[in-house]
Amino acid sequence: MSQMIRIAIDAMGGDYAPVEVVKGAVDALKEHNNVKIILVGDSTEIDRELSQHEYNKKQIEVVHTTQVISCNEAPVEAIRKKKDSSLIVALKMVKEGKADAVISAGSTGAVLVGGQVITGKIRGIKRAPLATVIPTMKGVSLLIDCGANVDARPEHLLQFAQMGSIYMEHVIGVKNPKVSLVNIGAEEAKGNALVKEVYPMLKELDTIHFTGNIEPRDVFEGETNVVLCEAFVGNVILKLAEGLSSTLIHAIKDGMMSSTRGKIGGLLVKPALKDTLKMFDASEYGGAPLLGLNGLVVKMHGNSKAKEVRIAVGQCITFMEQGINEKIREQLGRR
Amino acid sequence: MSQMIRIAIDAMGGDYAPVEVVKGAVDALKEHNNVKIILVGDSTEIDRELSQHEYNKKQIEVVHTTQVISCNEAPVEAIRKKKDSSLIVALKMVKEGKADAVISAGSTGAVLVGGQVITGKIRGIKRAPLATVIPTMKGVSLLIDCGANVDARPEHLLQFAQMGSIYMEHVIGVKNPKVSLVNIGAEEAKGNALVKEVYPMLKELDTIHFTGNIEPRDVFEGETNVVLCEAFVGNVILKLAEGLSSTLIHAIKDGMMSSTRGKIGGLLVKPALKDTLKMFDASEYGGAPLLGLNGLVVKMHGNSKAKEVRIAVGQCITFMEQGINEKIREQLGRR
Repeated sequence: MSQMIRIAIDAMGGDYAPVEVVKGAVDALKEHNNVKIILVGDSTEIDRELSQHEYNKKQIEVVHTTQVISCNEAPVEAIRKKKDSSLIVALKMVKEGKADAVISAGSTGAVLVGGQVITGKIRGIKRAPLATVIPTMKGVSLLIDCGANVDARPEHLLQFAQMGSIYMEHVIGVKNPKVSLVNIGAEEAKGNALVKEVYPMLKELDTIHFTGNIEPRDVFEGETNVVLCEAFVGNVILKLAEGLSSTLIHAIKDGMMSSTRGKIGGLLVKPALKDTLKMFDASEYGGAPLLGLNGLVVKMHGNSKAKEVRIAVGQCITFMEQGINEKIREQLGRR
Repeated sequence: MSQMIRIAIDAMGGDYAPVEVVKGAVDALKEHNNVKIILVGDSTEIDRELSQHEYNKKQIEVVHTTQVISCNEAPVEAIRKKKDSSLIVALKMVKEGKADAVISAGSTGAVLVGGQVITGKIRGIKRAPLATVIPTMKGVSLLIDCGANVDARPEHLLQFAQMGSIYMEHVIGVKNPKVSLVNIGAEEAKGNALVKEVYPMLKELDTIHFTGNIEPRDVFEGETNVVLCEAFVGNVILKLAEGLSSTLIHAIKDGMMSSTRGKIGGLLVKPALKDTLKMFDASEYGGAPLLGLNGLVVKMHGNSKAKEVRIAVGQCITFMEQGINEKIREQLGRR
């Protein structure tokens, strides 16, 4: 592919911005020569960071902005007021056709709202879901919607299922991905009004490989590829898993440190423990894409470092090269 | 308290029935002399188990039934058809004033539906929520509703909050328990339609100590005492936590066993690991009570053994001695 892919990066978003963001962008250039990265943010700070690195000047552009949206601001208000913030300017570049994708580790709320409102949805897409790759015992699954659209209706979930399948197949590389609906029971008749209504609709959808319900206890077993749910439940799954893993691991470490015997044992098991925990690290797959937009918006974790930024750039490139939006348009779009 | 508390136990429910159920009942008698236990089920099987033990014959009665509801049956149909099942007969004893409480480790669906339909709710209680004690870093919290009423409305959650507070204070023993609403953000304006509507109503309720939203990642930190949510979300929290803990622990064990160094270390850390995992064992607090009923119905885990049955008997006794239903009636009942 000879065409340059243009990625706007919110250089001011995240706990380690702009240092790690700029470093990640430069690192990405070493792996990809078909990309142009537009660093959006305070140009003085960005230039200072850039001066620390060697890179192909033609592949980086800096767009100066004067404002930053913080995580504590109400998203809708921040978007309306901070027109010259790094995030908003980056999102507008996609809307205006000056960039193909946006990456941001900034305020989740502002990225979600801004993505839907500024960048805009593909014609025919009713809601843009946030998807994220989660680690399982058998690799990874895609959790969709993990936080963008609360109170979703059945017709939204149908689209999420299809967009999730396309992403899982063509970006993550799982052929004919299995789609399962999160429910509090395995049988079709279980659950709340939403899942009861959407289940038969999913069964009739011939564009996906629907395998029925998945119970929350089985999500991390990895038997399915696309874990489908509405955003409130999806966010509960994502955040509870993060919180509980860290709680458990701390408790285990504390437990080991409470006796000499445990301390010695702890030192011995450390490498094995580290390998195990690495298994549950999904950061290799980039950030969380907001699907169904004109262009692509990738939300990264606030604590992302250069490595994660570099991987997210690769994720955007794969997304573009695989023509994900063309596939979504073909299957779900409206003229 | 001199009055005998009468507890009907579904002797046929659960993976280890009737052996462990009968043993647990007999064990409970060693701790309590103000209880009469009615074992409901196949009298031949129950009598055979009873003959293995020494106990005060006046404290045990056997009620013979001929049917059992299995976990694979549709609850509503099973309840209609299996009138002579151990569960239904036990529930009817509470309705008819022949018992004060029911304990069952059988089909969750049948216990939930049967509890609401057969035993009946306290006048003024709109829905009976399932509550369960969950282990946290700082002790235990009460998760309510963890599975009984999907598609609950705000007025139901208000009652759940109050009943959960009463249970936590008078059965578990936490003075003036803090109540938090599960939400996907800490601020009042976050969340779906249900939580947005119920938040200000909770703030105005002077019978509880409402402390605002709790994010799923913090549930197991133990900063709050009553974790309030509707049943779909509550069941996702409960089942995901069970599944993820077991997945993580298996992965860690497998990781240790994959090298000689890890194996030796694993042996050394075993006692510490065991203590840590025990910290996350909430079975000391009995089964999950269905609150707001005339009487009390306690759902035990299907894999409960004698110890859990014994503890559940104690839980029912405390519930009765503390007059929980009188307190609920006083605060929420209607004449």
